[in-house]
Amino acid sequence: MNLPKKVTIIEVGPRDGLQNDPSIVPTDIKLSFINALKAAGLKEMEITSFVSPKWVPQMSDASNIVKATYDQSRNIVLTPNRKGVDRALQEGCKSVAVFVGVSNTFNLKNINKSTAESLKELQPIIAELKEKKIFVRACISTSFYCPYEGKIQMDDVVALCSSFVEYGVDELSVADTIGMANPQESFYLFSKLKELFPDTLLTAHFHDTRGMAVANVFAALQAGVDRFDTSAGGLGGCPFAKGATGNVATEDVVFMLEQMGISTGVDLTRLKEAVQLIKSHISRSIDSKYFSLSES
Amino acid sequence: MNLPKKVTIIEVGPRDGLQNDPSIVPTDIKLSFINALKAAGLKEMEITSFVSPKWVPQMSDASNIVKATYDQSRNIVLTPNRKGVDRALQEGCKSVAVFVGVSNTFNLKNINKSTAESLKELQPIIAELKEKKIFVRACISTSFYCPYEGKIQMDDVVALCSSFVEYGVDELSVADTIGMANPQESFYLFSKLKELFPDTLLTAHFHDTRGMAVANVFAALQAGVDRFDTSAGGLGGCPFAKGATGNVATEDVVFMLEQMGISTGVDLTRLKEAVQLIKSHISRSIDSKYFSLSES
Repeated sequence: MNLPKKVTIIEVGPRDGLQNDPSIVPTDIKLSFINALKAAGLKEMEITSFVSPKWVPQMSDASNIVKATYDQSRNIVLTPNRKGVDRALQEGCKSVAVFVGVSNTFNLKNINKSTAESLKELQPIIAELKEKKIFVRACISTSFYCPYEGKIQMDDVVALCSSFVEYGVDELSVADTIGMANPQESFYLFSKLKELFPDTLLTAHFHDTRGMAVANVFAALQAGVDRFDTSAGGLGGCPFAKGATGNVATEDVVFMLEQMGISTGVDLTRLKEAVQLIKSHISRSIDSKYFSLSES
Repeated sequence: MNLPKKVTIIEVGPRDGLQNDPSIVPTDIKLSFINALKAAGLKEMEITSFVSPKWVPQMSDASNIVKATYDQSRNIVLTPNRKGVDRALQEGCKSVAVFVGVSNTFNLKNINKSTAESLKELQPIIAELKEKKIFVRACISTSFYCPYEGKIQMDDVVALCSSFVEYGVDELSVADTIGMANPQESFYLFSKLKELFPDTLLTAHFHDTRGMAVANVFAALQAGVDRFDTSAGGLGGCPFAKGATGNVATEDVVFMLEQMGISTGVDLTRLKEAVQLIKSHISRSIDSKYFSLSES
């Protein structure tokens, strides 16, 4: 069994987690959370998103978050459109995430554009970002199943990823948005993507909706994936995807990886402190076996 | 990826689950639960155990359970010692489970005998059971980690399994009693056992204490294992093993297997009815993603 020796965790709790929690967390708590996560060794992180404060009040303090987290970590901000990208550039962000759904219906319901329209809009944006030496992460949602269209074809995922690689993105974050993928599907899709795009960072993003996320991580490792999006405390979920509960918990993934001798650079004791810090400020309960066990 | 086409689920909820729940479930509810599980397609099941009613009042109705479940299913009763075996034989049981821990300390704390003493006692018992054409299942606990001794050596598991195979057991149920095994360890141990004991039924028994149980099932499948102990609703756990929460939930394992095209013969809708039936009679909450999602 040939697994990577080292894995990079991309922490998405402060963005994906807090954006999808009904509570509006005060900026100073968010910053303490982010700093606690960094102190635990998480060096790549989605910290906030430049979305409409009218629709997503949870992220209305994006500018302040960005201003306060200007360090050597990869501080990623999510931008849904041209306006978001402009705000990110204005704030001097060095790492930007864009996103699109493989499922056309999902994309339409999520951001009111077809997948093709999204791609067309993103091509010049990515070119501009790359010209400015910005790190570009492309988040590919509904890469396995769509709540409206059902099973997604692997060819469609490959085609979308190909476009992004052609546009010059640095990273593909390929997501099982509704937590429906089984580990065999994960193994095959990620094996294919690893083979086709050896020069692009490839990250797997799993939700634990049906209890298969950790198994999917194990399957993706076997496909050679060494980057995983995870969320401290299992925070998050997608408000547009019915039944999409939280992301797989950072601490559960880190625990398994370290147990297998795979280095993550993450300190579980400090990570637990970060989860404890955010716990009382969110509406969801913490969904992580490691955390529950250590609290019991 | 070469996975089995068909998997047998050994349901342990009525025994492992209810024995380790603080509540004493009325016999008629237990029987309804057992029948609902059978109606869902579960044909092999730990139904009760002949243990001391003084120490384990949850199982004091073992004889009545056995009398009421005399059908073509493999109705397994757990017996901790000679006395339990005699009671099982007296009741006409056709399938008996015996158990022993690989860890000597665990075995001592659990049943007040060393592992060697347990083996010595079991050899003639197994011989007698086999002479009487009884199906004998050997449950090997602490096969990966022990709460007292830590990491268990694979050689010790192999040696214990060898003895049982030599004694003539029909099945080895190899357990990660405290839910600490990682999928790589599971893959290696089960690959080894599959290679060494090709003629004995080999069953993997995982607990989800640290969120790795489903990943371990996936790993064991890759090692060729096609039998899994699981518990409806994730009921159970081991009262002697600190931090040993429930068995992996039957519905989560069945869901994953069926999604991968692996046939289990289990009807998830009916299985959910069985979980709903037992839910209000136990102290623990249901620990299954499939159940939670379908209830939400």
